[in-house]
Amino acid sequence: MNVDGKKYRTIWLAADGASVEIIDQTKFPYAFEIAKLHTMEDAAHAIRVMQVRGAPLIGATAAYGVALAMRADPSDASLDAACSALLQTRPTAVNLYWALDRARKTLIQVAPEGRADAAFVLANDICDEDIAINMAIGMHGMDIITAIARTKREGEPVNILTHCNAGWLATVDWGTATAPVYMAHDSGIQVHVWVDETRPRNQGAFLTAWELGHHGVPHTVIADNAGGHLMQHGEVDMVITGTDRTTATGDVCNKIGTYLKALAARDCDLPFYVALPSPTIDFSLSDGIREIPIEERSGTEVSRMTGRTDSGAIETINIVADGSPVGNPAFDVTPARLVTGLITERGVLGANRQSLAEAFPERVRVSA
Amino acid sequence: MNVDGKKYRTIWLAADGASVEIIDQTKFPYAFEIAKLHTMEDAAHAIRVMQVRGAPLIGATAAYGVALAMRADPSDASLDAACSALLQTRPTAVNLYWALDRARKTLIQVAPEGRADAAFVLANDICDEDIAINMAIGMHGMDIITAIARTKREGEPVNILTHCNAGWLATVDWGTATAPVYMAHDSGIQVHVWVDETRPRNQGAFLTAWELGHHGVPHTVIADNAGGHLMQHGEVDMVITGTDRTTATGDVCNKIGTYLKALAARDCDLPFYVALPSPTIDFSLSDGIREIPIEERSGTEVSRMTGRTDSGAIETINIVADGSPVGNPAFDVTPARLVTGLITERGVLGANRQSLAEAFPERVRVSA
Repeated sequence: MNVDGKKYRTIWLAADGASVEIIDQTKFPYAFEIAKLHTMEDAAHAIRVMQVRGAPLIGATAAYGVALAMRADPSDASLDAACSALLQTRPTAVNLYWALDRARKTLIQVAPEGRADAAFVLANDICDEDIAINMAIGMHGMDIITAIARTKREGEPVNILTHCNAGWLATVDWGTATAPVYMAHDSGIQVHVWVDETRPRNQGAFLTAWELGHHGVPHTVIADNAGGHLMQHGEVDMVITGTDRTTATGDVCNKIGTYLKALAARDCDLPFYVALPSPTIDFSLSDGIREIPIEERSGTEVSRMTGRTDSGAIETINIVADGSPVGNPAFDVTPARLVTGLITERGVLGANRQSLAEAFPERVRVSA
Repeated sequence: MNVDGKKYRTIWLAADGASVEIIDQTKFPYAFEIAKLHTMEDAAHAIRVMQVRGAPLIGATAAYGVALAMRADPSDASLDAACSALLQTRPTAVNLYWALDRARKTLIQVAPEGRADAAFVLANDICDEDIAINMAIGMHGMDIITAIARTKREGEPVNILTHCNAGWLATVDWGTATAPVYMAHDSGIQVHVWVDETRPRNQGAFLTAWELGHHGVPHTVIADNAGGHLMQHGEVDMVITGTDRTTATGDVCNKIGTYLKALAARDCDLPFYVALPSPTIDFSLSDGIREIPIEERSGTEVSRMTGRTDSGAIETINIVADGSPVGNPAFDVTPARLVTGLITERGVLGANRQSLAEAFPERVRVSA
């Protein structure tokens, strides 16, 4: 998307044709800096320290990491070592596993002298595929926004609430939940986004606000507590969030607090949509609340906050009474009954087993 | 309540019998300091800069402010000037108006030479009345906790979620939402409190956690986003919040985000109680969502956060992407249909017009 008028992806082959460039997301929201990855170790480091984040972007970075390793040493041993090292960076990331598995299976069949080129082609394909999926999500989601826009009076924007960052910064481009918003905005539909701060890690206030602002999309940051009130008072037309994992029955696991917004949308008779690339559907799961284990993360994510002082220094402050224990579940599950529709690359689907199975029959067979 | 084993109120007549002492709440949660009020101006200052906060405590401080003025100059002109100056400190605080109106009406009938003593007696009465109300709320609410405790296995606490600070620091003692908790804890019932951080002003993480911790009540601070997930997984037995204003029909206006917790409690089939002293019921209102204007506060409450660095300095940091607009509605309304019961000084009432009217017939007549 645009950063102050110039088009960017989150990762791309550098002009020298040999190294890879990324937007260094550890500098957000205070600086926009490009980092250069020269080696596989640079790519592993970028994933580990979260210079790149978001499942699709992590997968793409790993694929480029393999390519950088193949340029240095295209042997089978080097290929195995690269895949193994990159997988260790974020062992629970499904896209990482998937990208590395695909890279290894593809490249092992290529003679060593052709592996570097093949690996760069593959990494580029993985990026292009992510973009194609997100653009398809964007077009299907834009239809929903367009329909709402038709019910609005001249000059009134479509008000969309989102939680966390399912934006282009988490993907190669467009994002998932944000793709419909960017496409609607770019095609001249008036939109305005309510951006949940998204405690405790503030991905909304830090990342979603940053990317919407730099692309020029009107938006307002709010405390996570505010969304229900805004919905009660007609200030929200629809909710779109992303998801980390969706069950075969349409239960949606996403950043903690998503469930509360789905409840408010239902109570206020507003549509609640989830945008997702189909690889995040786990057809082996039927009951999200019972079956999806929720990561309990460090309490310091709640009790400590980092930001910039007026003098420009980055400081970390303590914001919980001394000695009080802190709990920090990182995700919650929104039951399918609260989800108006799942915006996928194959269209807007009902959040139920039948709709998902009909749209992705090849996935159901594999996991049955 | 207790602060590390020693009993405190939030305001009291000093040992010298002439000045008034308060807990300086601007120092929370980093320091526990007592401030001395020698003059009416000191009392006005304490209210204005929020050394004292919470409707009942503001009212009590104003009453002591009048007493301090009467000690300096008991004339009619001094009485009028004191009431006027104190009312200006927080013009929208209902308890402030009510306490000053009562002080003026009472004292104008007393000869000047007796006014100082009468004013101190009155201020003390206002404090005692607040405590009596809160103790009654506490006893009625404790019955609910006791009933839940009976359903628990040996060693399992009753898990209570609360939002914001409706604790003893907002009153003279006991608090409203916390009174049942303190009484249950003090009488040996095992309780554990989930303390919502309560963005954007963090009254939960700063104040509720502080007071529960110093009284010795087990508790855990969580991001506001976490409560729904905890309720889905059986980690919450009941919710108790306070309220700033309740309609004749039982709609509850309270700190922003309360509505989301009420929705989650309903979805998870858990009881959602609101503790309130009856003066916060506004019998002139029937529809909370339509009739109660919601204060939009400064966006800097969301975008800036103050806390203590590890080196002990108090710093303010910016935590929203530069240039992004911020919205900050301060309260929301929870419709009566989501409220299991209103815990008042006259018992636990249904959140509906009939129950409230039957319990407070004298209030209905006045506002009819």
